[in-house]
Amino acid sequence: VDGTAEMIFSGDELLRGDVLNTNQSYLGERLLDLGFLATHALCVTDDLAALTAAVRDSLTRRPAVLVLSGGLGPTEDDLTREAVAAALDVPLDHQDDLLRAIQDRFAGRGFAWSESNRKQALLPRGAAAIPFSGTAPGFTMERDGTLLIALPGVPWELKDMWQKHVEPLVTGRLTGEETARAAGARSGRAVSSPTGWAAVPAAAHEVRRLRAFGIGESMLADMLSDLDWHDPDAILGTRASLDGLTLILRGQATPEGRRKLDVLQERVCATLGDKVYSLTNEDLPVVVGDRLRAAGLTVAVAESCTGGLLAKRLTDIAGSSEYFLGGVVAYDNLVKTGLLGVDETLLQTHGAVSEEVAAAMAEGVCRAIGADCGLSTTGIAGPDGGSEDKPVGLVYVGSVVKGVTRVERLRLWGARDQIRERAACSALDLLRRRLPR
Amino acid sequence: VDGTAEMIFSGDELLRGDVLNTNQSYLGERLLDLGFLATHALCVTDDLAALTAAVRDSLTRRPAVLVLSGGLGPTEDDLTREAVAAALDVPLDHQDDLLRAIQDRFAGRGFAWSESNRKQALLPRGAAAIPFSGTAPGFTMERDGTLLIALPGVPWELKDMWQKHVEPLVTGRLTGEETARAAGARSGRAVSSPTGWAAVPAAAHEVRRLRAFGIGESMLADMLSDLDWHDPDAILGTRASLDGLTLILRGQATPEGRRKLDVLQERVCATLGDKVYSLTNEDLPVVVGDRLRAAGLTVAVAESCTGGLLAKRLTDIAGSSEYFLGGVVAYDNLVKTGLLGVDETLLQTHGAVSEEVAAAMAEGVCRAIGADCGLSTTGIAGPDGGSEDKPVGLVYVGSVVKGVTRVERLRLWGARDQIRERAACSALDLLRRRLPR
Repeated sequence: VDGTAEMIFSGDELLRGDVLNTNQSYLGERLLDLGFLATHALCVTDDLAALTAAVRDSLTRRPAVLVLSGGLGPTEDDLTREAVAAALDVPLDHQDDLLRAIQDRFAGRGFAWSESNRKQALLPRGAAAIPFSGTAPGFTMERDGTLLIALPGVPWELKDMWQKHVEPLVTGRLTGEETARAAGARSGRAVSSPTGWAAVPAAAHEVRRLRAFGIGESMLADMLSDLDWHDPDAILGTRASLDGLTLILRGQATPEGRRKLDVLQERVCATLGDKVYSLTNEDLPVVVGDRLRAAGLTVAVAESCTGGLLAKRLTDIAGSSEYFLGGVVAYDNLVKTGLLGVDETLLQTHGAVSEEVAAAMAEGVCRAIGADCGLSTTGIAGPDGGSEDKPVGLVYVGSVVKGVTRVERLRLWGARDQIRERAACSALDLLRRRLPR
Repeated sequence: VDGTAEMIFSGDELLRGDVLNTNQSYLGERLLDLGFLATHALCVTDDLAALTAAVRDSLTRRPAVLVLSGGLGPTEDDLTREAVAAALDVPLDHQDDLLRAIQDRFAGRGFAWSESNRKQALLPRGAAAIPFSGTAPGFTMERDGTLLIALPGVPWELKDMWQKHVEPLVTGRLTGEETARAAGARSGRAVSSPTGWAAVPAAAHEVRRLRAFGIGESMLADMLSDLDWHDPDAILGTRASLDGLTLILRGQATPEGRRKLDVLQERVCATLGDKVYSLTNEDLPVVVGDRLRAAGLTVAVAESCTGGLLAKRLTDIAGSSEYFLGGVVAYDNLVKTGLLGVDETLLQTHGAVSEEVAAAMAEGVCRAIGADCGLSTTGIAGPDGGSEDKPVGLVYVGSVVKGVTRVERLRLWGARDQIRERAACSALDLLRRRLPR
């Protein structure tokens, strides 16, 4: 990591708990990929003095990058321009060319123009406007080695601006003068920043994200200990979530750096084997879909405890209709016997939550829908309905691939939602492991 | 609002974007309900100097409440105890009774005890331990009118501690001395705080959350303008999300305050009519489930564009097996004709995305599963598959209630996920409106 970054978010809706701050996690991840470790991320109330103090306070720590988000709209609560000008002790200038660009944008989209929108053409002196996709222009400024970047608060506008304009600016690894010139050229104006932006990354970073499923905490600890990897130039991080483990490999984007990452990646894959399902950060339903498409196979699902979630995960993917035919949510046993043709004696003998019924459900849905592959789930998601024999979290996932049935028994933990999510992911992963790469 | 609050979260995982800060939105909402407006919420890197400076900085603003979250575990990165002690210039004391409580907890759960866990029995001098459900004790302290509350970072441990111990402490509206005595009694130790906690709410607040569906932005603006409500003692806020609108009514928990809230609530309900689906902040699938249960009716679903999401939303609710029998995800047209018995000529004449097919799907699933009510969705979720006649976002939702079919045509907007979520909620709401209260 070559420098530090800070983030300031304005908006009372973040402080009242009305919305989750997804901008923070997006920016934090993107900054880290570019080589900047965020040390502070502050949400601050819509108050000029508080926001100004926050900007000033951040600048005293001299981060390489300070990202501001929100407060660029036309209302009285939009105070980012004013706060940056006050914190940096510069005036706000009206930018005629920016005003015209904003008016053109409004006209082009048929939005009503209000005089309050004139405010959006104000910029702190020395700032360069960032081209905008929504209605609010962002801006960049430099001060004492910090690159200050002001972005909209609307998540899609922020992402769009970041991807199209900010990331190229930062990855360009320009000197301060070049940065200012480039930003100025882009906005069509000269930029008067007197200082260079010093703390750019020395070399571009390379980040690889591998995804794996079916690795518990203790297995992960053993794996990392066996790996015994301590090269500071190729760092391995992990992140656990319900749909598995993300292994994050970070290094330098140089031939030597990539070689080190290749060695690390090979060793991780050798240790985890078939549990690694993507080398390119793809979600499990995407990987399953790709394998089905490649093999020319179709799939159908029969769900009890996941209650539609497994089908939902598969159909989250646009284009899934190429291989996903449909499913049956067999919540009531009459649906299991009726639509899926599960033998009633199986239900009586073994109960709905059993290996036998999971197998019969997967086979039944293949038959009923005419699919090449079938997946099934049956289990106790809780919080009620558990017994000593069949506790909450007991789940069977069944699979049929070209006529061959295989069932796995799971002991899942957590709340109802978590058990259902894990059961759906486990079923997807079972199919993934049975399909050719 | 009677006082300000601040939050400090420690943990690099929040700054790297590995996890969303759900603790912030939870605490922000709870604090506001108690009468404290959060003005600052800071995520800070796991560094003693940075965390100490953040605590010190917050205390200079004299918030009524400062909540810290995270950094209470046994590892080197857990620095909250040390930072609070440094910021308040007090030593850390080893609490023998707390150590025994932690050791008992570990033994009781069969967790392995490690000497590093001894660190969790350290508290800044003057702090009172908060009883703990997980493995990390929290603590409270008072300084110059600020009540400092340190909680674990694990979301369920934080919520549990907040609900069971912190909220009662705060809502007790005790004077500082009483607060300290109560906290001391609870932890079995005397508390040496020399200062009173002054900025407690003058009166308890009452917050009501009404939920409504089917209200667009312009309708909301008109409604608020018609309402013309400006009583500062009964405040109306709104929050929009994919499953509808939350109307937040805030006032005083006094007889007079409640009367004002009653008037406001009545006027909101009179304006929005049948669009209000809960006066007690219940989710739409809960309300639908309650009405089905009360009417003694069962339901089944037939999904095309929502691909399992509608069934998932219904089965998110524990106990939904009382009224939800099952469903068919009819992604491929062969499933529509096969399992649901949709007439092939309907598909040929009108296309799968049509009023006629939506009706036939809802009727078909009632027949196939033997349910009293049926719901269906068919539409174009995008991003591909749209045409001029049938653009992305065109969705039909169908319903059958005791043999009578009704279909609604929707023009939804947004990305694939959003269109699917809105379609599922629209189907649930259609059923809700057709069921007796």
